[in-house]
Amino acid sequence: MHTDELLTRGVAEIISGPGFRERLEGGRALRLKQGFDPTKPDMHIGHAVGLRKLRAFQELGHQVVLIIGDWTAQIGDPSGRDQSRSRLSAEAVQANAASYLEQFFMVVDRARTEVRWQSEWYGSFGLEQALGLAGRFTMAQMLAHETFRRRHEAGLPVTILELMYPVLQGYDSVVVQADIEFGGTDQKFNNLAGRELMGQLGMIPQDILLVPLIPGIDGRKMSKSFGNTVDIRHEPFEMFSRVMAMPDEALPLLFETLTDLPIAEVAELREALAAGQGEPFTRKKQLGRLITAQFHSPAASASAEEAWVGRFSRQEIPDELPEHQLSAPVGIIELLVASGLAASRGEARRQIDGGGVRIDGAKVEGYDRVLSPGEGVVVQVGRRRFVRVG
Amino acid sequence: MHTDELLTRGVAEIISGPGFRERLEGGRALRLKQGFDPTKPDMHIGHAVGLRKLRAFQELGHQVVLIIGDWTAQIGDPSGRDQSRSRLSAEAVQANAASYLEQFFMVVDRARTEVRWQSEWYGSFGLEQALGLAGRFTMAQMLAHETFRRRHEAGLPVTILELMYPVLQGYDSVVVQADIEFGGTDQKFNNLAGRELMGQLGMIPQDILLVPLIPGIDGRKMSKSFGNTVDIRHEPFEMFSRVMAMPDEALPLLFETLTDLPIAEVAELREALAAGQGEPFTRKKQLGRLITAQFHSPAASASAEEAWVGRFSRQEIPDELPEHQLSAPVGIIELLVASGLAASRGEARRQIDGGGVRIDGAKVEGYDRVLSPGEGVVVQVGRRRFVRVG
Repeated sequence: MHTDELLTRGVAEIISGPGFRERLEGGRALRLKQGFDPTKPDMHIGHAVGLRKLRAFQELGHQVVLIIGDWTAQIGDPSGRDQSRSRLSAEAVQANAASYLEQFFMVVDRARTEVRWQSEWYGSFGLEQALGLAGRFTMAQMLAHETFRRRHEAGLPVTILELMYPVLQGYDSVVVQADIEFGGTDQKFNNLAGRELMGQLGMIPQDILLVPLIPGIDGRKMSKSFGNTVDIRHEPFEMFSRVMAMPDEALPLLFETLTDLPIAEVAELREALAAGQGEPFTRKKQLGRLITAQFHSPAASASAEEAWVGRFSRQEIPDELPEHQLSAPVGIIELLVASGLAASRGEARRQIDGGGVRIDGAKVEGYDRVLSPGEGVVVQVGRRRFVRVG
Repeated sequence: MHTDELLTRGVAEIISGPGFRERLEGGRALRLKQGFDPTKPDMHIGHAVGLRKLRAFQELGHQVVLIIGDWTAQIGDPSGRDQSRSRLSAEAVQANAASYLEQFFMVVDRARTEVRWQSEWYGSFGLEQALGLAGRFTMAQMLAHETFRRRHEAGLPVTILELMYPVLQGYDSVVVQADIEFGGTDQKFNNLAGRELMGQLGMIPQDILLVPLIPGIDGRKMSKSFGNTVDIRHEPFEMFSRVMAMPDEALPLLFETLTDLPIAEVAELREALAAGQGEPFTRKKQLGRLITAQFHSPAASASAEEAWVGRFSRQEIPDELPEHQLSAPVGIIELLVASGLAASRGEARRQIDGGGVRIDGAKVEGYDRVLSPGEGVVVQVGRRRFVRVG
């Protein structure tokens, strides 16, 4: 991959100091830091966005340093000081880490990865060292963190412990001598703490590469806590099905971050979709195939697609359907709008173009189909929206 | 001492929970916590205010627990994060502590004192324990501390380390199972942190007894950094002289906190002084004798007073004196006012009554002395104010 594309494709923001480009192309293997919280071993395709970027850097000869936050995890969740904190046993942390590593190396090259556990340095950390770090950051710096500021201003508790989290994550960068830290845009503050600390200690501050967060199948940020993820260990059919349920407007971002589709094609798709074209249904199947093949195999991916299309065609119609009564014959476009299956005539046409509209399971081609009162058919848009037309 | 007087004389504030009085008089030896910062081994009479209170509690059978902050001291001053922190060597801390203890036991009963070093618990403190404490206090609680709030609001840095100081001092109370913590009013926030922490851990929260801060010889708060202290290791003459230089209006507070003068007499003195009476000069000599005798001996105190009065009488007149020209004979009262040596006729009379007015070194008795033009004498009020009368 050309360096320009490496630094722009699937990248939300780069925070870099003087000489960044020279370091990148100077022939030395840069140390690419990536952190992992072993309370959450299940990786979804949102995580894979960053891992794919790490892999692209590895292919230029750089070195990944994966930090397993085993130590932070054993401290437990700091929020809610009156609640007992959920602590993970050392065994659970080990098990989660093993599971995570297995997933991590589905994308990242194991041969160019150094795995480090926080306990190497925090296990023997004394209070004096902890306070030494605490002396390097001010309350005001911490209140620059939106999460802290918002909670503080709302009168919600922010404990000193929580203030120490970015500090400790930052110190990880010092220990492993990170050149570039990778993270999602939600990690910016923590990553900046590492950059700040390295500068204070006379090191070249790490550069930061932030990847975008992607939406989940319900359009909100993809997150385990919303239950809207596509997990990289989902079985092929489940994975394919979940990709098919992603919002249309996410397609360009998903192609950009999770496939090797040439970036020019991604740009074309973005434009086409914005203009109400671009065959989102067809494209989404393509995306589902590419993603499923990536975490399973091309064969498994093809089977998943076939099964999905088959199941879709088998017309698994829910028992209880909304009814739409006709008093006169009506065209399919008009019906889709009148029944609420499409928001506009434009959308109705796009749905038909994309192959997403069926009458009694048969795909509707073109806009000419007319429905009559008493015909008693089921009209379907996508997988989940149905109306019984009377 | 009667309990009512014990809890009011020389006491600025008591913060106590239910059952305080019962605990105090219940027959169990209470544990009275007092902290010491071994970066500052020189003790002044402002510190003695609290030590005298500890002694009074000891005489009812209670137990002093002195915490030597050897560990905090080795961390150094947290303020000014870009400055290198001044660190004390372990040897310096030992020497300071030895010196402090010697002074401490000039007032406090050694037989009823337990000396504890912070390093007993902080020396082996891990990061996990430190973060455990950090999780028990919020930023908002810390910003209730006036020092932190004022600096934060002024945009001055407050480091996380500094936030940890009250927390660690508070944890000292947990370790030694303090019943009452003693401190100056400036220690209230730190002491409250201990109270809070004990409550969180299910212990009976320590009560807090705060003693007033006293002024130094320049009227500002007595503090080593202002150079205005009366140190308990000052030689008798120096000690007596410095007491004589204290502001008149501090006399009632100093008698209350640093002597056993019956509290009724202190109250009378306060009223008399407020009414422009009360013989401050005489009273100050009495105070000087009592304080000097306390830290040296009655004999040494008497010698100091004699030497001070002698030196005062030896007329050590500065070379450069302000001049006051007479054009006609004038009474001493009128002269004192006209030359600015007294603010009013009333003050002039009080100065004469107090033995503070001399002409050419001879004490002026009564108000009848008349001075004439050309007489060429030096008129003196107190030790330091002189006028040459021509």
